[in-house]
Amino acid sequence: MINEHPQHGLRTVWWEESAHEGVVCMIDQTALPQDLVTLRLTDEEQVAEAIRTLKVRGAPAIGVAAAFGIALAFHRLLKERGGDEQETITPQQAQELQERLRAVSDLLASTRPTAVNLFWAIERMQRRAGALLSGGCSLAWLAQRLRDEAQAIAVEDFEACKQMGVYGAQLIADGASLLTHCNAGALATAGWGTALAPMYAAHKAGKTIHVFVDETRPILQGARLTAWELQQEGIPLTLITDNMAAHFMRRGEINAIFVGADRIAANGDFANKIGTYGVAVLARAHSIPFYVVAPLSTIDLKLPSGEQIPIEQRNPTEVTAIRGVPVAPAGVRVANPAFDVTPHSYVTAIITERGIARPPYDVALRALFSSHQHNGKQANG
Amino acid sequence: MINEHPQHGLRTVWWEESAHEGVVCMIDQTALPQDLVTLRLTDEEQVAEAIRTLKVRGAPAIGVAAAFGIALAFHRLLKERGGDEQETITPQQAQELQERLRAVSDLLASTRPTAVNLFWAIERMQRRAGALLSGGCSLAWLAQRLRDEAQAIAVEDFEACKQMGVYGAQLIADGASLLTHCNAGALATAGWGTALAPMYAAHKAGKTIHVFVDETRPILQGARLTAWELQQEGIPLTLITDNMAAHFMRRGEINAIFVGADRIAANGDFANKIGTYGVAVLARAHSIPFYVVAPLSTIDLKLPSGEQIPIEQRNPTEVTAIRGVPVAPAGVRVANPAFDVTPHSYVTAIITERGIARPPYDVALRALFSSHQHNGKQANG
Repeated sequence: MINEHPQHGLRTVWWEESAHEGVVCMIDQTALPQDLVTLRLTDEEQVAEAIRTLKVRGAPAIGVAAAFGIALAFHRLLKERGGDEQETITPQQAQELQERLRAVSDLLASTRPTAVNLFWAIERMQRRAGALLSGGCSLAWLAQRLRDEAQAIAVEDFEACKQMGVYGAQLIADGASLLTHCNAGALATAGWGTALAPMYAAHKAGKTIHVFVDETRPILQGARLTAWELQQEGIPLTLITDNMAAHFMRRGEINAIFVGADRIAANGDFANKIGTYGVAVLARAHSIPFYVVAPLSTIDLKLPSGEQIPIEQRNPTEVTAIRGVPVAPAGVRVANPAFDVTPHSYVTAIITERGIARPPYDVALRALFSSHQHNGKQANG
Repeated sequence: MINEHPQHGLRTVWWEESAHEGVVCMIDQTALPQDLVTLRLTDEEQVAEAIRTLKVRGAPAIGVAAAFGIALAFHRLLKERGGDEQETITPQQAQELQERLRAVSDLLASTRPTAVNLFWAIERMQRRAGALLSGGCSLAWLAQRLRDEAQAIAVEDFEACKQMGVYGAQLIADGASLLTHCNAGALATAGWGTALAPMYAAHKAGKTIHVFVDETRPILQGARLTAWELQQEGIPLTLITDNMAAHFMRRGEINAIFVGADRIAANGDFANKIGTYGVAVLARAHSIPFYVVAPLSTIDLKLPSGEQIPIEQRNPTEVTAIRGVPVAPAGVRVANPAFDVTPHSYVTAIITERGIARPPYDVALRALFSSHQHNGKQANG
């Protein structure tokens, strides 16, 4: 029961609808790779819980899931009211709907603090709703247009992944051996992924590549998700524990590193899955190019540097037990930051859907936002 | 049923005997921290299997286990022959016993390739047996003296640990926060351990310390053994996944790093648990002192550099399943080197039972071997 994406083998989060009933569907990523289970969520609480418990994860994918969650809330409302609300919303109703929107947004925004795509998608949905409400429309129209906006976010993410793949593949030589950390693949987005998109593109273009996959403790997204994804696509990979990466770098077996990002500050500092910073320092020590791949929705120009990125602390049991099996003595003190911050000085280039940014990033990233050409130009400062 | 060591809370490998029956006892380290189980091994095959399957691990501890394994083989022989072989061995019998010794030695030496203490202990037992056989003695005498020699190796290891603790503790400031990788503690030796000995000594001397413990995938010796040991001693610790170390280094939360070694080459390059090299590179990048703690029996002056140290490759299932639970897709390709090699240039100092060696190590390590003073002098080149 693989969910076939029109242009790729796998769908991560998607919308289904019959009559006025909307359903947010997603692959339960906590069940992979043993089981491929599709969740069918029918209210926004379930969507929030799915994000919180990592059933859906990856910065772009949780943005898409949250957008669908908002659309779902208004579809539910529409259904409660009979599904036939064609009359123009009154100013008082508009006020109530704004309150409802705020409550749903707060619920979804409270799930995870680090990835900015979540807040970006919620704000975009809020702007769309605000414009519709102030323009005067029916509840049915509002619900449908919010569904369309969430769909648009998903489609744009899919297209952005494809573009990142095209740009990133230029940096991959035939015969290259790459390394990635965590899962920034199809499962983390609505498309090919971010860090994995250049690999998929290079592979489809006929280049021979090999990927070292960090297992990525504590949640093992590398072992469970990235290894599985690459395997499905027939890309040769070697699964390693996180602490083996340095060994293979020293032996000259890694030519380039590609990682995703959960939030990129204006100066190019970025947050990503815990362990990314260590990989970046090791890459520098071994003179290996270190690439960050992320859509513009991951870039938070409001933050001057990585110092301001909030880091999520997760439950200690993620470290002390692995898939329910205890691996540490009872009562042990644990640290479990879900992310770390890598200073921009370690980043060789940032690959976006609008081209490749190189240092100085404060200039290059702003240039990408003001650029409307989608032609792969290099945004150098 | 903690096995009380005369001067420390825990025994790792020890000898028990009634009449002419010898038994090699050890804690089954694969069952920790959930269960504290004592194995009672009655033949050398069982000892070899226990080493191979990591029921006993840690460079000094497997040396002690192998020495006891040889003693056990001769005790078995003695028992088979009635336990009362007081007659002087004939030259023909001596020949047979030498063959037997070689077979037992080969069996034990074949268990694991990287830690030199194993070969060092076996060779020492062989030398002792050779001297006894050429001197003319009874089988009973030979068996008892080999048991004594193995006991001596254990006692010397215990004393060496204590001395390393004394020297290493000088490098630990009151209030320090340390990091260690894998388990180089009491469970890895016959005494306090190597890397953990300075921590035990500092703690006993009343210094306040805190230890970050790398969980150390794939076998999780940090989470299962080091965390447990430190907890037993009441030393404050924080368990982290291996990929978190860089994050805490960057935040200035780690003041010094102590690791053990499985083999140290003449130039100071050393092999230790996979992941050690990465920690060393990260320590250098953050200007954190990086200390290796090991007895002279771990130093292999025959090897000019770390390039010649054989690296054990272990079963892929150690990576793809954690304590029997699968964490990766079936059929995935895995690399599983059990050790890595860290070049001497990353090592701030090597702490031995004869004092602290500092660069250049080729001079300093040789100086320690020729030194017979046990007075903590610094062996500088």
